Amino acid sequence: MDKPLILVCNDDGITAPGIRHLINVMNQLGEVVVVAPDSPQSGMGHAITIDGILRCDKISVNEGPQTEYSCTGTPVDCVKLAVNVVLDRKPDLVVSGINHGSNSSINVIYSGTMSAAVEGSLENIPSIGFSLDEYSWDANFEPATTFIEKIARKVLEEGLPHGVCLNVNIPKYQGKPYEGLKICRQAKANWVEEFDSRTDPRSRNYYWLTGKFVNYDEGNDTDEWALANNYISVVPVNSDITAHAYRNELKDWNI
Amino acid sequence: MDKPLILVCNDDGITAPGIRHLINVMNQLGEVVVVAPDSPQSGMGHAITIDGILRCDKISVNEGPQTEYSCTGTPVDCVKLAVNVVLDRKPDLVVSGINHGSNSSINVIYSGTMSAAVEGSLENIPSIGFSLDEYSWDANFEPATTFIEKIARKVLEEGLPHGVCLNVNIPKYQGKPYEGLKICRQAKANWVEEFDSRTDPRSRNYYWLTGKFVNYDEGNDTDEWALANNYISVVPVNSDITAHAYRNELKDWNI
Repeated sequence: MDKPLILVCNDDGITAPGIRHLINVMNQLGEVVVVAPDSPQSGMGHAITIDGILRCDKISVNEGPQTEYSCTGTPVDCVKLAVNVVLDRKPDLVVSGINHGSNSSINVIYSGTMSAAVEGSLENIPSIGFSLDEYSWDANFEPATTFIEKIARKVLEEGLPHGVCLNVNIPKYQGKPYEGLKICRQAKANWVEEFDSRTDPRSRNYYWLTGKFVNYDEGNDTDEWALANNYISVVPVNSDITAHAYRNELKDWNI
Repeated sequence: MDKPLILVCNDDGITAPGIRHLINVMNQLGEVVVVAPDSPQSGMGHAITIDGILRCDKISVNEGPQTEYSCTGTPVDCVKLAVNVVLDRKPDLVVSGINHGSNSSINVIYSGTMSAAVEGSLENIPSIGFSLDEYSWDANFEPATTFIEKIARKVLEEGLPHGVCLNVNIPKYQGKPYEGLKICRQAKANWVEEFDSRTDPRSRNYYWLTGKFVNYDEGNDTDEWALANNYISVVPVNSDITAHAYRNELKDWNI
């Protein structure tokens, strides 16, 4: 049997330690092709490049059996380019990450890493986004290795429904082994913005987006609960965002 | 009673005819503040500006009672800046659009217009995205006016649940009156990409993203069905994107 073909992407850029670790893990599982952004694309959500051109060039970052392409676009552009231009067959798996920083709760909709996984699921390819709850460039990805490998193998075996991908969030390593995996739902949480307003050398105002994360979900079945309790959280993510439960109520409006 | 405070945003940029029309309609309903991108931001999805600065300056585009701010960021940045920096009280309604081009089916996740509405709903403000199924700059927004006003008034009266907004898609006007409003779900549909590969004057390859829209949903309760049958489609949209129905199946994996 052919080795499975695995597409690797991220949003922190092709040289980020998180994606380098993920490539090493995936090299154990199959034939790896990397198509990732040439620069950081954090917070790009499901953005695509409509008004501009895209470049996608073969490069070599580290030694290893993987093939790598650096792309000027967003994470979603990378997946589209990979599937439609770079690869000569449909990949068996798309993995995105490992993101430097968690993509739990509402962060999933801002995350370029997760949007790459969602895009894979729209192309009907089993897809997983991995994120570590540690922003640092020197984050310790090693302790999560066996879990990442286990989840990827299982998804290769079982597949995933069209339009559904997995959002895997890994706690920051605190020196003690992870408790295990937990299937979760997205916690109800918000960012409360606190823009930092400044004045430039030419006396014009400008702003930095900043904010405070507020989790107002007390459930013990959420991704936030899992992270806080040293579990690796696995949330299945949908691309149908209809609020189905609310449709009937709307019908009663009789507008 | 105070007039309702209405925040208007879009993704085609503050000078687009679609937002100018929406501002005129909203001026009939309340006190209007516009915070919109200074340039086109189509396809920006839920992107936010993390690595760069934001500008947000008061400008005047057309005559009218509205107050207007032009912003360097994405549609989601605009909503965040409006709520946290520009406005001195929480708006009663966020409206985004009118988009030049539909945001039905899967387009909802790529759309900056809809992401602005989703962001409003995350801030617990009743929010609506409006899109017309006509890309042209000279699109005819007029025939939709009474429907837009009706939906906005109803949402001001009834409110919407935290985290739920409305995605309103209006068919292209074909010379006969719209059939009415229809509460719908997001159609299952996809883009099949066909990248246009070219060579630049310095012999380097580049790509334009292009593609064909494929609707593979035969239901008559979808937004695509509504548009095809001259109905204005109203889809409630969720910010919890957990695939709840699939969680139990995942638990059976025993990973």
